[in-house]
Amino acid sequence: VSVPLITFLSDFGSEDWFVGAVHGVIAAICPEARVVDVTHAIPPGAIERGAFVLEAAAGDFAPGTIHLAVVDPGVGTARRALAVRARGQLFVGPDNGLLDWALADPACETRSLTDARYFRHPVSRTFHGRDVFGPVAAHLARGTAFAALGPVIGDPVRLPSRRAHRDDGAWIGQVMIIDRFGNALTNLSAEHVVEVLDGAGEEALVVHAGGRRITGLSRSYGDAPVGTIVAVLGSSGRLEIAQVGGDVSQRYGIGLGDPVRITKAG
Amino acid sequence: VSVPLITFLSDFGSEDWFVGAVHGVIAAICPEARVVDVTHAIPPGAIERGAFVLEAAAGDFAPGTIHLAVVDPGVGTARRALAVRARGQLFVGPDNGLLDWALADPACETRSLTDARYFRHPVSRTFHGRDVFGPVAAHLARGTAFAALGPVIGDPVRLPSRRAHRDDGAWIGQVMIIDRFGNALTNLSAEHVVEVLDGAGEEALVVHAGGRRITGLSRSYGDAPVGTIVAVLGSSGRLEIAQVGGDVSQRYGIGLGDPVRITKAG
Amino acid sequence: VSVPLITFLSDFGSEDWFVGAVHGVIAAICPEARVVDVTHAIPPGAIERGAFVLEAAAGDFAPGTIHLAVVDPGVGTARRALAVRARGQLFVGPDNGLLDWALADPACETRSLTDARYFRHPVSRTFHGRDVFGPVAAHLARGTAFAALGPVIGDPVRLPSRRAHRDDGAWIGQVMIIDRFGNALTNLSAEHVVEVLDGAGEEALVVHAGGRRITGLSRSYGDAPVGTIVAVLGSSGRLEIAQVGGDVSQRYGIGLGDPVRITKAG
Repeated sequence: VSVPLITFLSDFGSEDWFVGAVHGVIAAICPEARVVDVTHAIPPGAIERGAFVLEAAAGDFAPGTIHLAVVDPGVGTARRALAVRARGQLFVGPDNGLLDWALADPACETRSLTDARYFRHPVSRTFHGRDVFGPVAAHLARGTAFAALGPVIGDPVRLPSRRAHRDDGAWIGQVMIIDRFGNALTNLSAEHVVEVLDGAGEEALVVHAGGRRITGLSRSYGDAPVGTIVAVLGSSGRLEIAQVGGDVSQRYGIGLGDPVRITKAG
Repeated sequence: VSVPLITFLSDFGSEDWFVGAVHGVIAAICPEARVVDVTHAIPPGAIERGAFVLEAAAGDFAPGTIHLAVVDPGVGTARRALAVRARGQLFVGPDNGLLDWALADPACETRSLTDARYFRHPVSRTFHGRDVFGPVAAHLARGTAFAALGPVIGDPVRLPSRRAHRDDGAWIGQVMIIDRFGNALTNLSAEHVVEVLDGAGEEALVVHAGGRRITGLSRSYGDAPVGTIVAVLGSSGRLEIAQVGGDVSQRYGIGLGDPVRITKAG
Repeated sequence: VSVPLITFLSDFGSEDWFVGAVHGVIAAICPEARVVDVTHAIPPGAIERGAFVLEAAAGDFAPGTIHLAVVDPGVGTARRALAVRARGQLFVGPDNGLLDWALADPACETRSLTDARYFRHPVSRTFHGRDVFGPVAAHLARGTAFAALGPVIGDPVRLPSRRAHRDDGAWIGQVMIIDRFGNALTNLSAEHVVEVLDGAGEEALVVHAGGRRITGLSRSYGDAPVGTIVAVLGSSGRLEIAQVGGDVSQRYGIGLGDPVRITKAG
């Protein structure tokens, strides 16, 4: 069985009917699609957080997955609506930086959603998740050609860079998100760690974050005494700062945007 | 493919297992049905809010959709259980006003759920979502005839009217809900606005709410300076009072039940 | 149509992408499975609460259901991963007591998940819901033989007993959970009530909880005056202490672990 898969991320919350309405529209257009909710708890209008969560999530899904993402404070204004083909997957959402990870793929193809045949009518001024993005994702799931959605554009809105940078033998990144468990996820990757270690063992890694110095890489959240602050390579290939059995952001005051520096000991 | 669609709205929250149990019961009776959660964050026992959200959501779903709604503080008492056919859709829930929008359709047909063949047994005293309403919705999805569920009744419980009323050339409505984004949704519709304008342009609309006077209708939440209070025709055809980029209820103290008056300028 | 059913319970919350990632992995392995979320709001690492909710929920699902449960503070350490066949259903989760209800079945068969063919690779150190438990549940849904997962083990981790105990003619249990509606669910069952009543009517039941004395068993939450504290046999066959139209834990200070004693009047 081949079942088209649509993921759905938004800032719609769970108190109203907005998420359900989009599910209903998708089901009406493509009943055979499976829709997986990534999260709808992105704070209202928080485009950067939405972009980060989408990036973290998308890599866990199979090729061909269609990612529907709606964090859209500019709904109803002149901002464009986009579909992006990148990294073997498809992305649908507003042109405000939310799809930045897809757009960072040099081989990406970006189209402006202009063909109103794939919209729900009448198109409201305030709910394009229901009227534009959801229907387009459903039509893609049904087999509509990507090229049919609208013309290729070359100037999608991008986010300010949040890439780590080199500083002599160190890499300096930052805290991108605090997750449910109070772990601080950074934009430093396994590749940065390998480069810094330069052949030395994991025990030679030194991490500076929140005024703390952590040495070595732990294999899991649970293999040091409770309360210890540790550095871990997390499930999405990112360096994480964690407190064993606790919330590192509350306990150590580590927060969004805080710099994280990694070097080799000695 | 024709896939029966059931929506599900309740006050069950997401902390316990109640929502999942109802999904499981539906899946056992009608595995081919798709179940879309509208919301389960209705405050416990808040029938009026449940009724409003159901009304706002139902219109976005296709004809034939089955709406399962459970906000049921009287579970286990003598209150009846209902199924209503109205507006081209089906509604299943307690007889306490929750289904008021369906009941407001003059052509609706209302039945009391008395045929226990469509229940889950034993029927508990405290969880009719699992034992009565969910199973009946699933049986409807499977093709059980509406008329088989029980006898027609003529006296279902209705909510006190929350309709807008005319006052000379004005219409006076009220705030029905504050949504996730802090927008105040009213019971004034596009039809009220058209009637008040009486042929004049949108810029002639005057809205009084929360001690503020708003002139004109904005096309979206985002086409005025951040912080501005605006009036918008929202995605469900209702007049909404919004703050551009903010929460109008927090910023301007507009709350549930507040009167909203619309007139024509001059 | 026979559609395999997987339930999913975790402490992953709804803010991040963890729940969606597991859904995606399951969909990739077994697209025809239906996945029902029980709850993801178990507090981080709260194994006992997870075990109680799983126990309360599982009985509502059909034979053959696969229960995926992930509350796993020891992820990445030496703790084993388990699958348990018990009570006509299958359970997949960490070896930390979370699956205690399944393990309490004297006829249960418990296997250690050692066959890495059923994992997602590479297996991370920190997200076995995605890499181990989710994939194994999906393979079971696809028809993989239970015995293929790994060897039988005889020493799974169990929770400390929370069973009620006899005290002369009384049974003494405790409050296991406060649900969304503020009802206090106990570990006293209908069987305990029947034994204590010893042939007398329900009106002879005396319940002591939180310094209050309740006589008789109410048929529902709503058949006594608002504000009254009542005892009810709830939907999962447990004795519950409830406040009519209110939150018994807030109003009467009844909390987790509080003793509840039942006897016969006179």
